[in-house]
Order: sequence, then structure tokens, then C-alpha cells
Amino acid sequence: MKRLALLAAFLATPLWAEDLVATGDLGLVIERATGSLVLVDRSDRAALGRIEGLGDLSHASLTYSPDERFAYVFGRDGGLTKVDILTRQVVARTVQAGNSIGGAISDDGKLVAVSNYEPGGVKVFDAQTLELVADIPAAGKTIGLVDVPGRRFAWTIWDTGEVFLGDFSGAEPVITPLGNAGKNPFDAVLTDDAHTYLVGLFGEKGVTSFDLWDPAPKPQKFLTDYGKDGEDMPVYKMPHLQGWAFTEGQYALPAVGRHEILWVDRASEKTVATTPVHGQPVFIIAQPASPYVWVNFATPLNDTVQVVDSRTHEVVATLSPGKAVLHMEFAPRGAEVWISSRDDNKVLIYDTRTREKVAEIAAEAPSGIFFTARAHQTGL
Amino acid sequence: MKRLALLAAFLATPLWAEDLVATGDLGLVIERATGSLVLVDRSDRAALGRIEGLGDLSHASLTYSPDERFAYVFGRDGGLTKVDILTRQVVARTVQAGNSIGGAISDDGKLVAVSNYEPGGVKVFDAQTLELVADIPAAGKTIGLVDVPGRRFAWTIWDTGEVFLGDFSGAEPVITPLGNAGKNPFDAVLTDDAHTYLVGLFGEKGVTSFDLWDPAPKPQKFLTDYGKDGEDMPVYKMPHLQGWAFTEGQYALPAVGRHEILWVDRASEKTVATTPVHGQPVFIIAQPASPYVWVNFATPLNDTVQVVDSRTHEVVATLSPGKAVLHMEFAPRGAEVWISSRDDNKVLIYDTRTREKVAEIAAEAPSGIFFTARAHQTGL
Repeated sequence: MKRLALLAAFLATPLWAEDLVATGDLGLVIERATGSLVLVDRSDRAALGRIEGLGDLSHASLTYSPDERFAYVFGRDGGLTKVDILTRQVVARTVQAGNSIGGAISDDGKLVAVSNYEPGGVKVFDAQTLELVADIPAAGKTIGLVDVPGRRFAWTIWDTGEVFLGDFSGAEPVITPLGNAGKNPFDAVLTDDAHTYLVGLFGEKGVTSFDLWDPAPKPQKFLTDYGKDGEDMPVYKMPHLQGWAFTEGQYALPAVGRHEILWVDRASEKTVATTPVHGQPVFIIAQPASPYVWVNFATPLNDTVQVVDSRTHEVVATLSPGKAVLHMEFAPRGAEVWISSRDDNKVLIYDTRTREKVAEIAAEAPSGIFFTARAHQTGL
Repeated sequence: MKRLALLAAFLATPLWAEDLVATGDLGLVIERATGSLVLVDRSDRAALGRIEGLGDLSHASLTYSPDERFAYVFGRDGGLTKVDILTRQVVARTVQAGNSIGGAISDDGKLVAVSNYEPGGVKVFDAQTLELVADIPAAGKTIGLVDVPGRRFAWTIWDTGEVFLGDFSGAEPVITPLGNAGKNPFDAVLTDDAHTYLVGLFGEKGVTSFDLWDPAPKPQKFLTDYGKDGEDMPVYKMPHLQGWAFTEGQYALPAVGRHEILWVDRASEKTVATTPVHGQPVFIIAQPASPYVWVNFATPLNDTVQVVDSRTHEVVATLSPGKAVLHMEFAPRGAEVWISSRDDNKVLIYDTRTREKVAEIAAEAPSGIFFTARAHQTGL
């Protein structure tokens, strides 16, 4: 009878209203050293729990299902892991290559594509089951994989400079070569309107753009002579292009090997300004609904974040959030930015209006921070 | 014992994994005649249930909490209703004015503001409890209320043309007049980067813009002489500006009283093209991640939707989805558009790539369609 009373009491608790969780303001922080994720709540500025068993996350990223329930985590060990953030469990995992560097989900949420280094190429999986749907080999390492509307993906090959557009909307994939971007493209990114695919070059100066609204996109090179009057430094960390900012009709681009941000007019692809900054930029990310971009830097100058005004191209703030700042993620409407400090084992939360720290969350060697709002953004 | 067995069986069912619902791909459809909402699932293209008791929804809109769990519904009867889409229940309701026309939620999700006609003004409520936080009277009907980053709102007065910016981040609200927009502003909208507040005028030709990135925004009028060579028709339905499209560095604006879309360069505010269309535009909405805008029309030409290319400014498709098309809502990454046909009692789902109908959902006299992804967008 005591047991029955307990059960009845359990059933009588208002389970549904209290324990239901909506997913719109959640996020995952990658703990790079321990192969785990911290589930966070943006509104409460709190960690909700830890999810473990994701393999080697020393260089990892993830993307979300359209319902903001499942995360697809791309690990350096070639592992593709599907995580349910409601039950906080790994629900599927496949080690699909020897070394992978990122992935994307199709606009309808049905397919997950992974870009691989070893062996090179793109593998496409059913988002529900993680069954292999298509295997597109390549003559080298795949970089800059992005989702393109119409159940398509675009990607680039480091070794050959080739760029491809893959259409997975029919019974068989249709892979179209878009031409050559240049020597050793190191990353690529899609503008938020899915108009321009930008490929950054490491083997030569320049950035190559492709107009994906054009039925037959062609490579167009720009920024081919930046920094010709100065001397380049060794590159301590390859910049990430997913953070390339698009604001005020401009691209804010990292000058590879230099302490500079390059501002390029989107329409003309001409350089309009150069901003000297604290170090070699890694991520340059636009603060949503504002004129500002925030920049972090390569080692050994990675304890600093700077804020630059896209109208004047001047640094308006220099912050020292912590040791080894690896990533920044904005609340989707821009009120806060979350900054990971790997060597302080913390995520720092800054108010973007006062630029003051308002909270912090403990995490083991945090790197990437990913809010679920990314589910609704093309190219992320 | 039989009861105990039933309870045990109930507890043994895998309640959590099966019945948990994430909110990222949900939406609400307003049933204008019955004062009810249909909860829909975008991924399943399905209605999940109906929520009733929302009063007069004959001209209603809504906005979402940052976690995509709660909807704040603004009814014509002055009712502000908070709906929990997880439990599918009305959790709070206040009739806060005699006649209201819309509202917005602050960027941090803490405050909900309502714009009122009778009496005119803005009332601000605690988003959690719906307790009144601030009451800002006005010398007329309030229109064009939008959220601005930094816990601020902007709004405009129909009768006087005055525009205000209200800052609710401190202990007391700070209300700043921004100047006069012109004669009888009928609606206003904020660009997605929160840069420009655009006010459409009915009492005179023109649109007035305010640069909200400027510490002291000033009115700047443009489009003051459109259609000067033709004759205007009676306005059958006031266009909605929330649908004003921003694409390819242009605004796509409705020519009030005319069968035209006006294309204005964002930077120069000069007219670059005019597109003759089927009727008087009501909503002009950009298809995300594409060069296209979709347009619906005022009665009696409201059985038609046209698609216009923002590069060529030409109509590329004319569709006849159903009788009395009142609204269109895109999947956030643009793969589908949902169209409400009031007099067919249906919501029609179109694939944006093929522009063919892929599904439909029954609804009683549907008007506005609102997907939860709006929670993450400034100005919506």
C-alpha cells in the first residue's frame, strides 16, 4: 500500500507543465579534451547537464535538426554522432571516415552530409537513422561543406582547388563541378542569403566567390593583392570562415598571416578598408542586429577579443575574457555573446550593450558553442 | 491490485523518449472567425491540435518567447493571451485595452509590448506573468511597434505622425521622440539588422526612414513622388509592412493604391525599378536564401500569389492557391511556403523550388501563420 501511495503521488504531480522543456533557447558546448558536450540554457545562463561518449572532439562542430531536438556532431576521428538534447543521450553513432572536419544538414532536415579528410570526399546520411545514402569520393581533402537550398550541398577540395555543387533532391545525386577556386582553399562559407559561396585561399593570395543564384556559377577571384607591401607572418592557426561577417553590405575577412581585418564591398568585391587588430583573426562574427563584428585571435595572442564598428572600421572595444579564447556565439537577436575560454575551463557570458561580463559557466576545455537557433539558418 | 498493475504498466511505458516534443519546427495558425489557433508541425506538415478561447482574432498577430514555448497573441479586442504550445493551453490572458493591433517581445524575452488603438499608446507587460510594467499613453492610435535590441521598442502614432523609441533596460522607461514621420503613417517595420525603421505613409506619398544605429535618429523621407503620372485607386486593404522584403540590397515596397511593387536601393533610397503586378500588394515577403519575393493582393484580387525576381524585377510565377489568400509564411531556410486561404478553410503548403503544392491542412478561416523560428528574429 505504501508503494501504491507513492505511485499515486508520483502520478498526481503535474509532470507535464513542470518538466516539459522547449528547445528554442538551448545550446551545446563542446568539451574538446574529454569528448563530451555541456547542454546549456541561454535564458537561465545555466548548464543543464553533460553528454558523454562522443569520441575525439579536439576539432569538432555540430548542426541541428529543424525541430531543434537533435544535434549531429562531427568529430575529428570521423565519428558522426546524433544526440537527443531532450533525453540528453547519444541516440546513434557511426565512425564513417578516418578523419572528418565538419558537416551540414539539408534545408529540409532529411540529409546530413559530412566532409572528410581521410579518405577525402563527402558522405551523406539519412538524418533519422544515420544510414549511408550517398558516398561521393574526392581527389583530396574536403573543406568548406555547406547546405544550399533545394536539398543541395556545396564543397571544395583542398588539394585540387575544385568546387562542387551536389543536388540530392532526386533519386540519384547529381554532382556538378563549378570550376577551380585556386591554390589550396582552406575553408569556405555561404552568405546568409545563399547567394555567394566564398572560398578562402591559403596557397595563394585571394578569395574566390561563386554566385549560387546563377544557374551556372563561375569562379571569380578578388583580394588577390592584399598585404603586398608588408611581410607575412607564419600562420599560427588557420582562420575559420564560418565566422566571416556580412554586415553593412560588406564582407569582413581575415588577412591570412597578418594582424588585419579586410573589408570588402559585397557588390563590387573591392577592398574598402583595412583594420589593424590585436593578432591574427580566427573568427570574425557579426553581432546580430548591430553594426559590430567581434574578433578573436590565434595563439599566442588568444586571450583577447576585439569589437570593430563596420561603419568606421575602427576598433571600439578590447576585452580580455580569459585564456585561450576559441569561439564566440551570439544569442540570435544579439543581446548576449557567449565566449569559450579553453584554458580557464569557462564559458563567459557578455552583455553586448554594456560589453560587461554578466555570468559564467564551468566547462572542461570548452571550444565551439552552438545555440539551437542555428537550425533555422542557411549555411550553418 | 488491478489498479496497481495498471499504474505499473503506465509507469513502465517509455514516456519520455516517445512523447517529448521539441518546439523548433512548430507553428500557430490564427483562425480568425472562431478565436482559436491551430498548432502545426512543419516537418510533418500536420495539425497537432486546436487551442480555443482567445477572444476576437479577426485582426490578430503573435510573437514567441525565446525558448519557442510560449506565444503571446494580440487580439483585436485588446486581449493579450499567453499560450503554452507544449501543454496546448492558455496560461494567462488580460484584456488590456479596447482595441489593439499588434505587439512585440524584447530581445531578452523579458517584456511584451502591445500597441493600442483604444485608448492609444503602448502597454508593456512582464512576459512571465503578464503583469503591467509600464503604460505609455499617446495622442492617437499606435502603429508599427517593433522590438529594438537592448530591451527597447520603437512605435509610431497614426494621428500625429510622431515616432518614439522606448528604452526599458533601466529601472524607469526612457521614452525618446525621434521626430515626425509624416501624415498618417499606417504601419512601420524594422530591417532584419535593426538598422533602419521604415514608416509607410497613407496621408501623403512616401516612406520615412530612421537610422536606429545613429545615437540621434532623424526622419528621412523618400519615395515621395511615386505614381505621380497615374491615377490612384481606392485602397481595398492597407498593406502590411511587416512583410516588406529586404533583398539584394533593396527594399521591395507596396505602392499604396496601385498594382505595383516599388524597388528602392537601400543605401541611396532611390527608386531602381517598378514591377506591375496582379493587384494591390498586401504582403511582399522575401523567400529566405533566394532572390525571390512572394506577393499576395487585396480583395477582390486575393485568390492569386505572384513570385518576383529581385534581380530582374520581373514576375516569374503566378499561382492560384485558393480563395482569399491572407498570409504567407516561409520555412526559415526557405524550402516551403505555407499559404492561408481563408475562404477555402485551408492552409496550402508549396515547395518553393518546384512552386507546386505538396500538402494542405484544414483550418477554419485561417489568417496569419506564425512559425516558432520567429522567436530568433529581430523585428518580428
